Amino acid sequence: MGDVAARLSKLGIALPSIAPASGNYIPYRLAGNLLFVSGQIPRIDGVEHFVGVVGRDISPEDAYQAARLCALNLVARVYAALDGDLDRVEACVQLRGFVNAPEDFRDHPAVIDGASDLLVEIFEEKGRHTRTALGAGSLPRGSSVEVDAVFEVATKS
Amino acid sequence: MGDVAARLSKLGIALPSIAPASGNYIPYRLAGNLLFVSGQIPRIDGVEHFVGVVGRDISPEDAYQAARLCALNLVARVYAALDGDLDRVEACVQLRGFVNAPEDFRDHPAVIDGASDLLVEIFEEKGRHTRTALGAGSLPRGSSVEVDAVFEVATKS
Amino acid sequence: MGDVAARLSKLGIALPSIAPASGNYIPYRLAGNLLFVSGQIPRIDGVEHFVGVVGRDISPEDAYQAARLCALNLVARVYAALDGDLDRVEACVQLRGFVNAPEDFRDHPAVIDGASDLLVEIFEEKGRHTRTALGAGSLPRGSSVEVDAVFEVATKS
Repeated sequence: MGDVAARLSKLGIALPSIAPASGNYIPYRLAGNLLFVSGQIPRIDGVEHFVGVVGRDISPEDAYQAARLCALNLVARVYAALDGDLDRVEACVQLRGFVNAPEDFRDHPAVIDGASDLLVEIFEEKGRHTRTALGAGSLPRGSSVEVDAVFEVATKS
Repeated sequence: MGDVAARLSKLGIALPSIAPASGNYIPYRLAGNLLFVSGQIPRIDGVEHFVGVVGRDISPEDAYQAARLCALNLVARVYAALDGDLDRVEACVQLRGFVNAPEDFRDHPAVIDGASDLLVEIFEEKGRHTRTALGAGSLPRGSSVEVDAVFEVATKS
Repeated sequence: MGDVAARLSKLGIALPSIAPASGNYIPYRLAGNLLFVSGQIPRIDGVEHFVGVVGRDISPEDAYQAARLCALNLVARVYAALDGDLDRVEACVQLRGFVNAPEDFRDHPAVIDGASDLLVEIFEEKGRHTRTALGAGSLPRGSSVEVDAVFEVATKS
């Protein structure tokens, strides 16, 4: 078992299964050593969670959990991209977090911390990333949060 | 004639001409093998099309066409960047699609499919990309859709 | 003194000091020759400036200054990432500018020009970048503008 897999096990974190790609976009794409991952919403097994506007329908605390779930979906896609070898992750390079929020919402960083914290729990120092957190005008399926990311991965040995 | 140029011809797709860069930003920038392309709106020959809010002023079907037009503008810029040799495109790596929509809009993916579908028509398997679709609060010139992208390209032989 | 440092001095531009990283995200991350920088708001020494909605609370002219201030913060982080050697910047590759604006706002490009213009003042031709300007539904701390960027940097000699 790899170091990261052992850490997941110790933390009691199970990665969700991901549906096979459908349509003309794909869950991940490797370009050189950069692994791009598509935007993730808080969906598990095809069911959307935390649907609604943060600060009105969804509490900031629940939105934090929504962001964490988005990040869990990111990691599940990284897992698929690397044939399960999460130890090949050198760094989470960039994370963008979009919060479905009313115009006067100000606490996007606290929401997106849910994604950032999970990445560091799983990848430790390598999980620390640059980040942009902001408010979307609306999100797919009415999701409260959407997150995408770019990782740096080691060349397959 | 290259493979992609032949496909464009067969599909009856003509790339729009692009205006020379103005101001301090540029239409594309190559960094290593990654080609970054600036955000595109549904503009042809300097005229904006599909102006308005999707789901209110603009139907989802028209918004699909708007996204397709944005992607056509992306490809025109890739064409310019590669001196016309679209066969150098190894992959469309990342596409971000922003929809000008009211707060309760939920169908961003169906809109941005207009961009995704065009890229796969033109580049086939290489055109399949990671994607983030979301709602903007507003868009330049009142556009209904804006799309940007990163491509991976082969080193010039 | 490097070329860029000399230019900063000549232009009378002082880079703001930046706070040490806190939390699980970081101000910059180098992956290969790409330097990713986290989203910046118009904050100096921990104080937010230009807070509010552009076109209502904040004039377009002030929003231009806000974008300029965001870009100054970007450059301060590049400076930190490169141990002060700004001559290692080969290119600003990609800039994304988010404007906190009402639904009918159309002039995002004129606002984000504040960031673009500063980057070209500092880095000249190397500062010209691809760009996506759009409207956010809301922004952290109520900021009027947020900007992030990717730079290409020369390998340390």
